[in-house]
Amino acid sequence: TMASSAMSKRLEGKTIVITGASSGIGRSTAVEFARTSPKNLRLILTARRIDTLKEVAAEIEKEVLPFKLDVSSPEEVRSFVGNLPEEWRDIDVLDSGLVKGVAKAPEIAEEDINVMFATNVTGLINMTQAVLSIFKKRADGGAGDIINIGSIAGREPYQGGSIYCATKAAIRSFTDSLRRELIATRIRIMEIDPGQVETEFSVVRFNGDKAKADAVYAGCEPLTPDDIAEVIVFAAGRRENVVLADSLVFPNHQAAATVMHKKS
Amino acid sequence: TMASSAMSKRLEGKTIVITGASSGIGRSTAVEFARTSPKNLRLILTARRIDTLKEVAAEIEKEVLPFKLDVSSPEEVRSFVGNLPEEWRDIDVLDSGLVKGVAKAPEIAEEDINVMFATNVTGLINMTQAVLSIFKKRADGGAGDIINIGSIAGREPYQGGSIYCATKAAIRSFTDSLRRELIATRIRIMEIDPGQVETEFSVVRFNGDKAKADAVYAGCEPLTPDDIAEVIVFAAGRRENVVLADSLVFPNHQAAATVMHKKS
Amino acid sequence: TMASSAMSKRLEGKTIVITGASSGIGRSTAVEFARTSPKNLRLILTARRIDTLKEVAAEIEKEVLPFKLDVSSPEEVRSFVGNLPEEWRDIDVLDSGLVKGVAKAPEIAEEDINVMFATNVTGLINMTQAVLSIFKKRADGGAGDIINIGSIAGREPYQGGSIYCATKAAIRSFTDSLRRELIATRIRIMEIDPGQVETEFSVVRFNGDKAKADAVYAGCEPLTPDDIAEVIVFAAGRRENVVLADSLVFPNHQAAATVMHKKS
Amino acid sequence: TMASSAMSKRLEGKTIVITGASSGIGRSTAVEFARTSPKNLRLILTARRIDTLKEVAAEIEKEVLPFKLDVSSPEEVRSFVGNLPEEWRDIDVLDSGLVKGVAKAPEIAEEDINVMFATNVTGLINMTQAVLSIFKKRADGGAGDIINIGSIAGREPYQGGSIYCATKAAIRSFTDSLRRELIATRIRIMEIDPGQVETEFSVVRFNGDKAKADAVYAGCEPLTPDDIAEVIVFAAGRRENVVLADSLVFPNHQAAATVMHKKS
Ligand SMILES: NC(=O)c1ccc[n+]([C@@H]2O[C@H](COP(=O)([O-])OP(=O)(O)OC[C@H]3O[C@@H](n4cnc5c(N)ncnc54)[C@H](OP(=O)(O)O)[C@@H]3O)[C@@H](O)[C@H]2O)c1
Ligand SMILES: NC(=O)c1ccc[n+]([C@@H]2O[C@H](COP(=O)([O-])OP(=O)(O)OC[C@H]3O[C@@H](n4cnc5c(N)ncnc54)[C@H](OP(=O)(O)O)[C@@H]3O)[C@@H](O)[C@H]2O)c1
Ligand SMILES: NC(=O)c1ccc[n+]([C@@H]2O[C@H](COP(=O)([O-])OP(=O)(O)OC[C@H]3O[C@@H](n4cnc5c(N)ncnc54)[C@H](OP(=O)(O)O)[C@@H]3O)[C@@H](O)[C@H]2O)c1
Ligand SMILES: NC(=O)c1ccc[n+]([C@@H]2O[C@H](COP(=O)([O-])OP(=O)(O)OC[C@H]3O[C@@H](n4cnc5c(N)ncnc54)[C@H](OP(=O)(O)O)[C@@H]3O)[C@@H](O)[C@H]2O)c1
Repeated sequence: TMASSAMSKRLEGKTIVITGASSGIGRSTAVEFARTSPKNLRLILTARRIDTLKEVAAEIEKEVLPFKLDVSSPEEVRSFVGNLPEEWRDIDVLDSGLVKGVAKAPEIAEEDINVMFATNVTGLINMTQAVLSIFKKRADGGAGDIINIGSIAGREPYQGGSIYCATKAAIRSFTDSLRRELIATRIRIMEIDPGQVETEFSVVRFNGDKAKADAVYAGCEPLTPDDIAEVIVFAAGRRENVVLADSLVFPNHQAAATVMHKKS
Repeated sequence: TMASSAMSKRLEGKTIVITGASSGIGRSTAVEFARTSPKNLRLILTARRIDTLKEVAAEIEKEVLPFKLDVSSPEEVRSFVGNLPEEWRDIDVLDSGLVKGVAKAPEIAEEDINVMFATNVTGLINMTQAVLSIFKKRADGGAGDIINIGSIAGREPYQGGSIYCATKAAIRSFTDSLRRELIATRIRIMEIDPGQVETEFSVVRFNGDKAKADAVYAGCEPLTPDDIAEVIVFAAGRRENVVLADSLVFPNHQAAATVMHKKS
Repeated sequence: TMASSAMSKRLEGKTIVITGASSGIGRSTAVEFARTSPKNLRLILTARRIDTLKEVAAEIEKEVLPFKLDVSSPEEVRSFVGNLPEEWRDIDVLDSGLVKGVAKAPEIAEEDINVMFATNVTGLINMTQAVLSIFKKRADGGAGDIINIGSIAGREPYQGGSIYCATKAAIRSFTDSLRRELIATRIRIMEIDPGQVETEFSVVRFNGDKAKADAVYAGCEPLTPDDIAEVIVFAAGRRENVVLADSLVFPNHQAAATVMHKKS
Repeated sequence: TMASSAMSKRLEGKTIVITGASSGIGRSTAVEFARTSPKNLRLILTARRIDTLKEVAAEIEKEVLPFKLDVSSPEEVRSFVGNLPEEWRDIDVLDSGLVKGVAKAPEIAEEDINVMFATNVTGLINMTQAVLSIFKKRADGGAGDIINIGSIAGREPYQGGSIYCATKAAIRSFTDSLRRELIATRIRIMEIDPGQVETEFSVVRFNGDKAKADAVYAGCEPLTPDDIAEVIVFAAGRRENVVLADSLVFPNHQAAATVMHKKS
């Protein structure tokens, strides 16, 4: 149809960096971009697990560059763009979703707090700055898309989520400030906040305790990573003047961070 | 492509009520629904100007019912569903966007306050309740979509917007409560908040003063009603478990209710 | 001590209008103002139950004017200032808290919606405009205090609160816009949002069903109206440059609209 | 008067830790606590500049312990309580306000980001956890007060504030989660958000450029640190069941992060 061929056209020729592309939403987003705009798309998939990235790349069968990157390392982020093959450096879209789990005050380990902030917050900020320096070189003050994956946790603090919520609130605020700072450019700053999505995250969050993770979803039908990926690609595929600045996506049984309906 | 044919399929056979369909976003939304899912769609277009609705209907060339309705009249809303031809009563989607302008305290005329609340707030609430009584009859607690058009004004109060902002904040709160109240059903409650869109509204807002309205947009490129219509149809076209609960859409030059970049 | 004698001094000679003064927070506020600044204070107590107002006035034993006023009547509000004895018209502080109960969509009676908006929203807006026209006559763009009693319900929508929350969200937005519109004056616009307070409201809210109201408080220790009154008087008693713009007050067992700890 | 002698009594015998006590709001808060409750108060003043803390202590002439502490050092925070003289360890109130300045993306130095998060966010979180472990030992799940100094910047992101706003948003979210997590205790979690206050911060923020700092305040009358100190002491001085959970304090010329009126 017309709408989606328009979208496919708008994405043509873009170089897209996806962080957290080895799993969950990031992985689905890679697949969805490739599906929507099969021609001339360059996808740079980053995460720590390079082998998994290679599997995702093989699945997509398009021009895909798997790239090992730990965003919590400022050094790795600093050298990221420079280490890309030259023809992959002209980045158009940065899609950032990263994640480290939760704990409850006052028993939160110092180390957990540090890793969470280093990944979700300063990691994302550093990546953003790295990519913005490319965007800003373009005409009219600059062009390009930043799509940050936030969370309902960044909008509504909840019990047991003090650190995770704080990292997401920080990123939400950063994203909003950034949009204001770049208002005289054509750079688009967008945030997409999912509610419950079934991914590896649910397991990571409970430090690998799958039984505990399953309990969270019992009687619920969470979103799939593909559901969020479709919203991300829709956002990137709008005409340049349209900024899907801030979206919240829930599964049908959820109405707030902790308001869920469970079928018994 | 696959994505949009999936969407087209999901919308098939739906009966969709659009309020404020004689102009702006509502009018574009009618056209966009017809474009996306050309088969078996029933569009009920409502507003006060029946002649204009007939023009829109003629343009669409599908099964369209123009219906004169002043939502600020509780009586008209109360009898609305009953007055529909029988085969048009099984409503699936209510898309509500209505609007009456702005003024500054303490010089806001009592009458203006009353009309604004009667249209934007109690009008929308009454319509919602009328349609919910149909939705609730369906299996599993009920099914159907409510899509309310809010505004950045409902998120951020601003100078000179005290009444308009208050009406949009009321609707935003109502929408969120409603989503919580209906969590055990399959009813989806969604809100889409546009920033600047070029429609008749900019003129209505300044009581017909076109020069003043034009000044607001000078040096800016606002969104078109079609841009918002595409987001509305995308929201309605998600698979049933996906609720695009709350979205903010800006043109590229805008970053907050009153933060705009003007080219000089 | 120095602090409170400073406060007492700052309030000296003020004419203070309290709406909803026949019960709960309004009644306590009247008593607390009189207690804090016993000299030359003029208290105008308004509500619909004039007899109860007279009882409150008798209790206070200061210069108090009980005044019958239904804020949901635009006519009564319009003539309010003009009907005051001349020496009571130079109002300095308007403290507004009004209230009409709750219900659940889609079974909310049209009449309930209308009364709730007419009282909590347009009633308060009309009172505000009436008093602002006095404030604006003073030097430097105007001076005086507006203190609106909001609610946690205006910050967080909740299930079963769709209309009450919407009215409080509207007032919250109105209050914020107003503060922006009056920024070039010395008029202070303040909002105080209580969590659970034990007042007649809990009974009114459940249409007189005291058993239901008691159930809400079982195992909890709510705030008293005096607790909120102390915050209101503290706000009014700051030096003129200090605006306690927006405060949320919870009892110790409450952390959100619906997050309460009940002792079993 | 009765009110303030009640307050003075409630604060009697408390051990109060103030971070950032060498300057601005923290310094004023120390003085205000001593003034309000002159008997049996223990004030622990912390900051990096021990000499300045000693000056503040000398000024107060009460039982005051100046204590050198860099909150951005997890080691120093970890050993903080243990290093206090034994009779100073039974802490009742933690008042936390810390600060490191601002810059604009994408030119924010990595080091600045790290120091800002280490001070304002993880520093404050670490201090909170250290003190909570004392609070939790008390009866009924624990007792004590945490008072965090946030900022309007944590509520409203603004241009040029991306990192500072993000740190304050993180703390705001953390504070709210914490209140929920500790709801079954008597521990009170409070946040006070100032608008413009004239302190050293304005100079720190512009990396020592006093001329730039002065420009921000030209034509404005900011709050004084004492104004905020009075609100902090008022919050700590409420009866135990009353939690002044979240307050925003503006000077009269300010209505939002970036909405100020300047006299010309
Ligand atoms: N799932 C949900 O319910 C949910 C809800 C709301 C928001 N979100 C957000 O959605 C985003 C994606 O989450 P998800 O559910 O898709 O999680 P996921 O399946 O666990 O994926 C997380 C991804 O982040 C990568 N990652 C983690 N640490 C990293 C680091 N230091 N450097 C580079 N990459 C790193 C992981 O790859 P490696 O391990 O290979 O590095 C993985 O690809 C997150 O921002 C999350 O907060 C999720
Ligand atoms: N334009 C913007 O910049 C902007 C920005 C944010 C949000 N919005 C929101 O978008 C929605 C649509 O606005 P728009 O810009 O498309 O405005 P518009 O072009 O002026 O259209 C408003 C529509 O509402 C209808 N309407 C007004 N009063 C009515 C009543 N009492 N009963 C029934 N219909 C009534 C009008 O039709 P009749 O006159 O024929 O009745 C018209 O169809 C509104 O909710 C508005 O608040 C607009
Ligand atoms: N109690 C709580 O838990 C709680 C929590 C959050 C916020 N609040 C807010 O605090 C404020 C005061 O509530 P409250 O708990 O003190 O309630 P309350 O004890 O029921 O008092 C309500 C007052 O409003 C007056 N009132 C009601 N309708 C009126 C009308 N049409 N015209 C004039 N006066 C009218 C009543 O007097 P007459 O009947 O004599 O007219 C009464 O004096 C309200 O804004 C409420 O929303 C209360
Ligand atoms: N001023 C405003 O306009 C304003 C507005 C809103 C919010 N606030 C907030 O109010 C709080 C206090 O700010 P202020 O204006 O009073 O600032 P200030 O006068 O600059 O004082 C800041 C204090 O923090 C201490 N500090 C800084 N880094 C530290 C570290 N690593 N370890 C320990 N102490 C440290 C400083 O002492 P040393 O240098 O001796 O360590 C100083 O005592 C902050 O949270 C700020 O964000 C201020």
